[in-house]
Amino acid sequence: MQSCLPRKIEIHEVVLRDGIQNEKKLVSTDQKIKLINALTDCGVRRIEVSSFVNERLVPQMADAEKLWSMVRRKEGVVYAALVLNGRGLERAMRCRVPQIGIYVSASETHSRKNSNASTAEAMREAMLLIEKAQGAGMEVRAGVMNAFGCAYEGNVPQAKVIKLVKDFLKKEPDEICLADTSGMANPSQIRKLLVRVQEVAEKVPISLHLHNTRGLGLANVWAAINEGVSIFDTSLGGLGGCPFIIGARGNIATEDTVNMLHETGVETGINLDMLIEASLQFERYMGQKFPAMVSHLTRSHS
Amino acid sequence: MQSCLPRKIEIHEVVLRDGIQNEKKLVSTDQKIKLINALTDCGVRRIEVSSFVNERLVPQMADAEKLWSMVRRKEGVVYAALVLNGRGLERAMRCRVPQIGIYVSASETHSRKNSNASTAEAMREAMLLIEKAQGAGMEVRAGVMNAFGCAYEGNVPQAKVIKLVKDFLKKEPDEICLADTSGMANPSQIRKLLVRVQEVAEKVPISLHLHNTRGLGLANVWAAINEGVSIFDTSLGGLGGCPFIIGARGNIATEDTVNMLHETGVETGINLDMLIEASLQFERYMGQKFPAMVSHLTRSHS
Repeated sequence: MQSCLPRKIEIHEVVLRDGIQNEKKLVSTDQKIKLINALTDCGVRRIEVSSFVNERLVPQMADAEKLWSMVRRKEGVVYAALVLNGRGLERAMRCRVPQIGIYVSASETHSRKNSNASTAEAMREAMLLIEKAQGAGMEVRAGVMNAFGCAYEGNVPQAKVIKLVKDFLKKEPDEICLADTSGMANPSQIRKLLVRVQEVAEKVPISLHLHNTRGLGLANVWAAINEGVSIFDTSLGGLGGCPFIIGARGNIATEDTVNMLHETGVETGINLDMLIEASLQFERYMGQKFPAMVSHLTRSHS
Repeated sequence: MQSCLPRKIEIHEVVLRDGIQNEKKLVSTDQKIKLINALTDCGVRRIEVSSFVNERLVPQMADAEKLWSMVRRKEGVVYAALVLNGRGLERAMRCRVPQIGIYVSASETHSRKNSNASTAEAMREAMLLIEKAQGAGMEVRAGVMNAFGCAYEGNVPQAKVIKLVKDFLKKEPDEICLADTSGMANPSQIRKLLVRVQEVAEKVPISLHLHNTRGLGLANVWAAINEGVSIFDTSLGGLGGCPFIIGARGNIATEDTVNMLHETGVETGINLDMLIEASLQFERYMGQKFPAMVSHLTRSHS
């Protein structure tokens, strides 16, 4: 079996949002700036700077406004944020965020726990948010959470995901993101769902947000690039997970993903050695060993 | 892209050989027997019981004879061992080992370090061993170590691997095993090498021995099953690695592999819940947390 891989993959770095949101140690605004600059110096061209959420629920995001005021925006880099509701969007608009992520969960149980609304209610709210963001000139990334299964509900029907994608497409977002929030995706399912979503989405780019909960993260990336997906969310060091879902720790690690892509001949524009150095530096700051593997190969035997 | 996956995969369990060979804590013969029985109770149908090597170099294998005398051989289970030389083969013959693994490294440097012989010399020796094993009625698994790269030499030319496979095929082994001894394989390379090896090997089954050194273990399994490979070496808990190669720790974990296969609709004949229980029990015996992921999902959040 031979297929045509994308020549280049875009890495959408989420360590500053999904990565640290559930970490107990608060990352200082200065350290966040340092990390953003280190990542863009490595060649990262898309980076989530923060979410705009209730700081009592996610204290790690309390400095969002300050952080956005301090980010030195480099030419060619997309700085992004995530919002959950109208209040978050207004904050993001005041910060002149160029790209905004707006998500709806394909699982009713998760939707109620995450946003206190049914999937249908959350979608109506999301569509209003998208309109408003587009009116403010923002790029919109519309995402489906738990697109590959739910820790609460188990299987999530493909038809439900397709329905949400179709709803989003009515608002002409710049990108559709499928998120494996619970880390339950497998490569066979990735392949099947992507075929269906790409039929529906036509020219709208699809991105994937994958977790490595069951060790399948890179197998899922491999299955997806063989279907032509060329945008992946990754988190430096493999930090992260969803605070609302039990057992869903561990985003796919930026360095492990970049290593696989480079080894298979796919470009990312990222300098892997510098990226590993940035990961190890942030690891020292956080005072813990991150799950990423390529960062620890030399060290563990030196 | 859609392809036809094998309906069923055979798991060749190597925790008792590759898994523990480099562990400092010596596993008692009784514990090994307990583990063998637990694994076959889970449905594992191929299991490496030991290697026959110099016990001063690999103290974990010092009880090979005693262990083989105590194994209760179940109908339908293939019990296997690995040998490096004539002395090891004679020991294996005295133990009436039904399946024997004989390996040659595709890397000159690794070959000299591992067997004190060039690749060509090692192949001549291996061919004599195969003849002798076949004469004793043993099944032979002929393997190429470092088939996907070498920690010492880096890239290993595909032509060198093919040459070794062709040499082995002259002796009509029951199986050809390609081993990613240094954990350097990537899914693109797996695909390319398998296409070439399958052309050469024709009807002789190909098995893969993969490591998860860079997090690519399951991506490589996924690439390989899409090429029709249906036999994989795995190690309970993800224990293992090659003691002669720096940085090559971590076989692919049996439970993570079985989970991926079941999730993608491929049978293994193995009960995953029982397998996880066996892994956690062995983990407690070894007094360490193994790298496997699906075994730790519930526990880490209970």
